[in-house]
Amino acid sequence: MGSIYGKIFQISTFGESHGAAVGVVIQGCPAGINFDLDFIQSELDRRKPGQSRITTQRKEADSVEVLSGVFEGKTTGTPIAMLVWNGDQRSKDYSHISDQFRPSHADYTYFAKYGLRDYRGGGRSSARETVARVAAGALAKLVLHQLGVRITAYVSQVGTLKLETPVEQLDLRVAETNAVRCPDTQLAEKMFTYIDQIRKEGDSVGGVVSAYITGCPIGLGEPVFDKLHAELGKAMLSINAVKGFEYGSGFDGVALRGSQHNDIIEKQADGSLRTLTNHSGGIQGGISNGEPIYFRVGFKPVATIMQDQDSVNEKGEKITVSGKGRHDPCVVPRAVPIVEAMAAIILLDFYLRNRVIQMPA
Amino acid sequence: MGSIYGKIFQISTFGESHGAAVGVVIQGCPAGINFDLDFIQSELDRRKPGQSRITTQRKEADSVEVLSGVFEGKTTGTPIAMLVWNGDQRSKDYSHISDQFRPSHADYTYFAKYGLRDYRGGGRSSARETVARVAAGALAKLVLHQLGVRITAYVSQVGTLKLETPVEQLDLRVAETNAVRCPDTQLAEKMFTYIDQIRKEGDSVGGVVSAYITGCPIGLGEPVFDKLHAELGKAMLSINAVKGFEYGSGFDGVALRGSQHNDIIEKQADGSLRTLTNHSGGIQGGISNGEPIYFRVGFKPVATIMQDQDSVNEKGEKITVSGKGRHDPCVVPRAVPIVEAMAAIILLDFYLRNRVIQMPA
Amino acid sequence: MGSIYGKIFQISTFGESHGAAVGVVIQGCPAGINFDLDFIQSELDRRKPGQSRITTQRKEADSVEVLSGVFEGKTTGTPIAMLVWNGDQRSKDYSHISDQFRPSHADYTYFAKYGLRDYRGGGRSSARETVARVAAGALAKLVLHQLGVRITAYVSQVGTLKLETPVEQLDLRVAETNAVRCPDTQLAEKMFTYIDQIRKEGDSVGGVVSAYITGCPIGLGEPVFDKLHAELGKAMLSINAVKGFEYGSGFDGVALRGSQHNDIIEKQADGSLRTLTNHSGGIQGGISNGEPIYFRVGFKPVATIMQDQDSVNEKGEKITVSGKGRHDPCVVPRAVPIVEAMAAIILLDFYLRNRVIQMPA
Amino acid sequence: MGSIYGKIFQISTFGESHGAAVGVVIQGCPAGINFDLDFIQSELDRRKPGQSRITTQRKEADSVEVLSGVFEGKTTGTPIAMLVWNGDQRSKDYSHISDQFRPSHADYTYFAKYGLRDYRGGGRSSARETVARVAAGALAKLVLHQLGVRITAYVSQVGTLKLETPVEQLDLRVAETNAVRCPDTQLAEKMFTYIDQIRKEGDSVGGVVSAYITGCPIGLGEPVFDKLHAELGKAMLSINAVKGFEYGSGFDGVALRGSQHNDIIEKQADGSLRTLTNHSGGIQGGISNGEPIYFRVGFKPVATIMQDQDSVNEKGEKITVSGKGRHDPCVVPRAVPIVEAMAAIILLDFYLRNRVIQMPA
Repeated sequence: MGSIYGKIFQISTFGESHGAAVGVVIQGCPAGINFDLDFIQSELDRRKPGQSRITTQRKEADSVEVLSGVFEGKTTGTPIAMLVWNGDQRSKDYSHISDQFRPSHADYTYFAKYGLRDYRGGGRSSARETVARVAAGALAKLVLHQLGVRITAYVSQVGTLKLETPVEQLDLRVAETNAVRCPDTQLAEKMFTYIDQIRKEGDSVGGVVSAYITGCPIGLGEPVFDKLHAELGKAMLSINAVKGFEYGSGFDGVALRGSQHNDIIEKQADGSLRTLTNHSGGIQGGISNGEPIYFRVGFKPVATIMQDQDSVNEKGEKITVSGKGRHDPCVVPRAVPIVEAMAAIILLDFYLRNRVIQMPA
Repeated sequence: MGSIYGKIFQISTFGESHGAAVGVVIQGCPAGINFDLDFIQSELDRRKPGQSRITTQRKEADSVEVLSGVFEGKTTGTPIAMLVWNGDQRSKDYSHISDQFRPSHADYTYFAKYGLRDYRGGGRSSARETVARVAAGALAKLVLHQLGVRITAYVSQVGTLKLETPVEQLDLRVAETNAVRCPDTQLAEKMFTYIDQIRKEGDSVGGVVSAYITGCPIGLGEPVFDKLHAELGKAMLSINAVKGFEYGSGFDGVALRGSQHNDIIEKQADGSLRTLTNHSGGIQGGISNGEPIYFRVGFKPVATIMQDQDSVNEKGEKITVSGKGRHDPCVVPRAVPIVEAMAAIILLDFYLRNRVIQMPA
Repeated sequence: MGSIYGKIFQISTFGESHGAAVGVVIQGCPAGINFDLDFIQSELDRRKPGQSRITTQRKEADSVEVLSGVFEGKTTGTPIAMLVWNGDQRSKDYSHISDQFRPSHADYTYFAKYGLRDYRGGGRSSARETVARVAAGALAKLVLHQLGVRITAYVSQVGTLKLETPVEQLDLRVAETNAVRCPDTQLAEKMFTYIDQIRKEGDSVGGVVSAYITGCPIGLGEPVFDKLHAELGKAMLSINAVKGFEYGSGFDGVALRGSQHNDIIEKQADGSLRTLTNHSGGIQGGISNGEPIYFRVGFKPVATIMQDQDSVNEKGEKITVSGKGRHDPCVVPRAVPIVEAMAAIILLDFYLRNRVIQMPA
Repeated sequence: MGSIYGKIFQISTFGESHGAAVGVVIQGCPAGINFDLDFIQSELDRRKPGQSRITTQRKEADSVEVLSGVFEGKTTGTPIAMLVWNGDQRSKDYSHISDQFRPSHADYTYFAKYGLRDYRGGGRSSARETVARVAAGALAKLVLHQLGVRITAYVSQVGTLKLETPVEQLDLRVAETNAVRCPDTQLAEKMFTYIDQIRKEGDSVGGVVSAYITGCPIGLGEPVFDKLHAELGKAMLSINAVKGFEYGSGFDGVALRGSQHNDIIEKQADGSLRTLTNHSGGIQGGISNGEPIYFRVGFKPVATIMQDQDSVNEKGEKITVSGKGRHDPCVVPRAVPIVEAMAAIILLDFYLRNRVIQMPA
């Protein structure tokens, strides 16, 4: 019962890795939005497997189909259903693991919780469910673009290879020009080589996706529980393989003093209030303050590796899990559009929650 | 509209720093629980100001009053309202800041969002609202204790002073024997001295609270969005001054390889399945697997410092904000019971959401 | 877990008949509303016991106290807590029924559901909980008044005494001038005499409350489930003793033909569209169309009567339940402000849900 | 944003009359349920158009397709998506009404609320959306059947032709043996003839669907707002064309006295408690008491008639709306499975909400 997200812009997702389809029903999308199907498809293409040799070779067209809520090119305010059929299911690849609990997968926990599970490709626990997130997020992005909000995510770390350049000095558009999606071309090449090496070794490695959001209006976020960063954190932590979330100064900020960390406010020539520094990450008291919002999302090395590992099966018998099939040696390049999608969903939902009532004068 | 949390065990909090009272209405608490008011009060006492010279000297009895939902010492299944009257309000302390936007506080964002604000002591954005969290969390703890779940939080970092001992080698009960709530007595003393120094300098410093949960049953968490760690993350990030959350291997896990990070499953003599390592932090695929759950919560240095700072007022005029009044130079000691409370609320809610239907044989 | 209502304007109520207090926490009230405490108190006074000899003689001041969310006379956008202390509890009146299941009360169902119950005065199942509804509804009314929405309820039936005059021919203000709250003075007198006779006989009788709402903007209601009349229906049916709800032509409309029932639309001189008739009751497809909204709410004769009745106790032993204490022989006069309050809560919530996003040109 | 219903068993529906498909995503269905697709299809067949000459002649196979959440014939606890493709769309039938506001349809209110609308066949406001309700309800029924709960709806009134026989004296299975779905064969014939006459006149007529539920466990319903009958009422009122809902003694109970209306409780030979009468309709204080639950749902004459009517178009110009296309002269026969479906969804949701925590002894 946990596959619904959002309060006003509310998504309900479905689908297993090797079921018929994955998809989403979106409630609460504003009416009258130009529904740019090409853009939505292009976002799905960014997430698609098989983009380079460092991503899984599963072949999926991932063509999105719209079933409702759009009429003559515009959203109608009614529920929008989108789905992607699963093509390259190759269920046979997984029959050998039907009773296996793979290490650090969700095989055991799903089995223990539900009493049975669709073992094919991890079933619902597969990252294939993020197709639905990206489709819904692309729609949210469409709306946000018209409101001037820009969300850009990029890879800032792979293993120990870490991007140290301050975000203000980066040209984030560069990220989309390489397979790793790192905005530093030289570092991107090192990362690519490293991931490719890991792939050849049949292993996997973790990484970090950073996000940078501009044009966000002041006032998004609903304290005391639904703070903007709290909801962003939940959204990011809900993505497969994520182990940590920090925003603004993050864990590094812990070591600072208040006198160093506080962001001094200044009035600008245009009358607006801006802060001299942005340790707050664009959010104060859980509410956006108009500065850029930035955060980091840490991904573990994915559990699927092409090596033999000890484990147990449903009966508790000792087994060897053999690495077979296709996998991503490092998920962060393909996680970039997913991070953006979830951020867009959260921001649009807060945007819609933030409506103030207009009282007559 | 963001002060409600939980799906079944649902809390609705209210109250400003210098209003009449802070409190909570709890919906969905199971009936028949022995309502141990002394325990709830003792949890509030752990959060109370004035516990030592390194915490704010605001004086509050913080006596909890129960208005409903309890009859003859037991919960009745109906809403439970608890409140704490605000005693030492000293509103005059704050009159001088009525139109000031203090740096890195929520003054500006609340004003911009709502068009007006209760400026006294930060109003709703004050950490005083956490009284309600601790009261509700104490009740959740009462229930969880009877189910064998133990939640322990402790201070693991203050500024750059960091506890490096693995949690398994710590006696966590030691934490409550010192003012800092660090389970390493010697480090606790260093931390105390450091915080006291910061206090004398009229400054503040950040820190980290770690949490360790045992006895959690297998199966808590509701993928794909309401994963156990995602909801824990949101809950922690919603606490004042929190900038980051990581669980299990966290951000450090990023640099590992899958072959190092994967937790191998083994059958135990008692028939249960356990993992040899616990990089997963007790959660796999968003569902608890029976291993200890652990996570870290990063707190920034609080914004209130006893130093002059540049800022602006509501009119955008340049002003000097003078540090006056009472404050915590480092919030993490008092944040320990708040972290525990939020963890308890999340766990109990998932416990209640996890009910499976019993079909007749 | 069912004492929360609303999606944006969200109320969370608490309190038992003979507990310490009854009250409500309101989330999502817009900021900047003039908080007219006198008006809220006056609404509670309309619901108060002891208004005439045909209502219960329980004595309650029912003075409302505001704990949060209001600053310098205005709402701040943060949660608003209001409570009313229970004064005249006279718990002894109820000790004799501690193990009794009174006929057609909720004694047995609460006991069976929760395993225990606060038996004093019906505990949570007492209509005393409607104090919280009226307080929250009064606040909603305050906001709606400024938006031009007027909600008027009145008694239209007591037993078989039925008001047959079409609502357009009534002066609804008359209702508040008599103890029965019927807008037809002569009928009100008959009703009063009848209720008083029932009271003397130690019996009770049912009735109908009608509601009439003007000034409601076009566009409230969220199909396909949260239709305006569906939510109004739920709200009314949730009031103690209600057995039925109908709006517009209601059950009488069943016998009509489409050619009789359809409301023909005409353009008015001012450019607005109006319907010639209003069988739709101001709602089409679940969305308000700008015409007056009207509905009827049927109340059963309350279960408390001053007569001996057969029943059983918790052990299943046959007992005689003796009528003692204080009761309302007919609840509809005091139900009038409750019906208005629930209607106001629903309308304001839809008003806030209806916000459309303003896209830049 | 109003097409989600339920708290645990949560349905999210989508689809327009003449869009690509209608469907539903179901969250929170228990795992391990035998997924009987034939049964679900058979329920859809009961709702299907074209069953007799007194229903619309639109031709739809209404074959349900399952996309997720079912594996090897059992539910897996993950979201279940079901859809039905729209076949016989005949969009051309509706092009002539693209700018027309038909009397007593939702054309005008949708247009006013959303600023645009899918005019084909009423778009989202068409009763075609109830396909999704019936599919979800069929699944809920599957679960409830295994729990011993039986829900039977039937037609009890068409126009002024009213079934007066007490439900206990009826053989409800008879209802499914005639086209009207009335359990009294003779009355059913009269109703059929009457509806057929109405059809020939190009008119429509209203009716009442009654429901009777047995085997419902004690304890369903969550006061004070989510009372069992309140939620049933909302669910029924959300069905197209419904104008009223009453349960138990309903509006007729208004005229009774408490001494007549109260249901006396008696202990049975098997130790259970039963009531001698059942004016309460199986629900007391909003919680089921184990007696049969019964209620009545009033449907207006549908707005679509085959006659010319005055109206206006989007520009406010006076027009004549001509009756063309296909329609149901009386919706109640096809509404029977819809009423059952919504009742099943509500009951299962309460069943799942009712889980009590099992405390260790």
